[in-house]
Amino acid sequence: MTLPHPFDIATRLEALGDGRYRGATSPDYANMVGPFGGAVAAVMLRTPSIAPDRVGDPTALTVNFCGPIADGAFDVSARPVRTNRSNQHWSMELVQAGETAVTASALFTKRRETWSHTEARFPDVALASELERSGNAFRPPWAQRYDMRFAAGSMPSLKDEPPGVEPVSRVWLADDPPRPLDFISLAALCDAFFPRIFLRRPRWTPIGTVSFTVYFHATAASLEAQGERPVLGVAWASRFGNGIFDEHAEVWSDSRELLASAHQVVYFKE
Amino acid sequence: MTLPHPFDIATRLEALGDGRYRGATSPDYANMVGPFGGAVAAVMLRTPSIAPDRVGDPTALTVNFCGPIADGAFDVSARPVRTNRSNQHWSMELVQAGETAVTASALFTKRRETWSHTEARFPDVALASELERSGNAFRPPWAQRYDMRFAAGSMPSLKDEPPGVEPVSRVWLADDPPRPLDFISLAALCDAFFPRIFLRRPRWTPIGTVSFTVYFHATAASLEAQGERPVLGVAWASRFGNGIFDEHAEVWSDSRELLASAHQVVYFKE
Repeated sequence: MTLPHPFDIATRLEALGDGRYRGATSPDYANMVGPFGGAVAAVMLRTPSIAPDRVGDPTALTVNFCGPIADGAFDVSARPVRTNRSNQHWSMELVQAGETAVTASALFTKRRETWSHTEARFPDVALASELERSGNAFRPPWAQRYDMRFAAGSMPSLKDEPPGVEPVSRVWLADDPPRPLDFISLAALCDAFFPRIFLRRPRWTPIGTVSFTVYFHATAASLEAQGERPVLGVAWASRFGNGIFDEHAEVWSDSRELLASAHQVVYFKE
Repeated sequence: MTLPHPFDIATRLEALGDGRYRGATSPDYANMVGPFGGAVAAVMLRTPSIAPDRVGDPTALTVNFCGPIADGAFDVSARPVRTNRSNQHWSMELVQAGETAVTASALFTKRRETWSHTEARFPDVALASELERSGNAFRPPWAQRYDMRFAAGSMPSLKDEPPGVEPVSRVWLADDPPRPLDFISLAALCDAFFPRIFLRRPRWTPIGTVSFTVYFHATAASLEAQGERPVLGVAWASRFGNGIFDEHAEVWSDSRELLASAHQVVYFKE
């Protein structure tokens, strides 16, 4: 018997009936404080994904991190807000110790073949196999769960002055241990970039994602074709200020298909 | 006595108490079918904005268009999901004829002066005063409510072959009649770009925004300083396919401050 993958343990949900589920944080995906936000986003997306009355596949996901999540159990509720012929809207909420810690919404759509065109450009990067794996030993546990190979914009040393000159990260990412890509793990991967503020201002800063949105362009078939091989992540910021910054990301298959784009606002302390 | 601005009429809400409000669509902001999505987003954002217990200013807004909105009255409910020391999370819902037509979430944060840096670049464009106003006479009513001056990527003629070579729109936008900029009108402006698919495939296609997210970088003071003068909008797409495309946008002040960025997924029919 094969043991479940650590990611599937971290995002496991026990159905309590009536759209309610029980889950728990996992030490494998722990962050500095509480769980890795990407694993939380994956948990939120899993609830409609496993619902028997679900229509289609994920197209949009927004996760709002309303308060801290402590290590341990939590409850998630999910309700289909509206079911249309070719799409479905969901609202989800994560409660721990009687307080709402996370709210989320998801749009599922039936994929159908149409005219297609990709406007974004796959960047000019070395192959994953030609790059060295990033040493994440001094980073929180969740970062060890990803094989990261930076073609550009890696985490600067805290001694670097002046701050990084390449503000866009281009990094090959894969689950460690390897795991076939699906929508749930793609949602988590979209949050697997280190905070953009560390590139522009390489010094210790407490940060936390407050709102996170993923758009899924992939089909289930394209994720299956990707399998366990590394995907290419590209991440950048637009503006830092007033205690907030944003992060934008693209995740590409190794056959140059744009699988997802992601956006988030992050709180930072000074 | 000055009459209210058409935008304030279109986004007017009557408080029914207990976080419930009554509003109505306005013919001034009508779209092909139902109301302009930007006006709906503005209505959703207005509910927490006018709540007496509101903390801070808008930082993130996500609006999910779950079903059609008919011309006429609707009800909006808004509840503060969680109030922290420096931020507040809200959930909103718009119901019409007993059905949920829109769900939304908003993050409000107290602005505080911190280190700041803008990574995005203000594009090289002509001044609004040097450009001709776009003739929107054949577009839906809401488009007449904006003074649009394209520096690049204007709506192609349906006779254009091959399709537009400039896939990024750069357009000066202002309310018509003029109105001082605020967070509510900024939310609507973030949706005032014509559908990206018309640039790449200039033929009639039924489309509809399904999920829309705005990140507000501006402070109330920077919006006040902008006043009624045109803002610069930049809009582009990443990928079209499977009946869906995305749109990304930036809105800049004329003093080159990034006021907001916005993201949406749009359904299209073939």
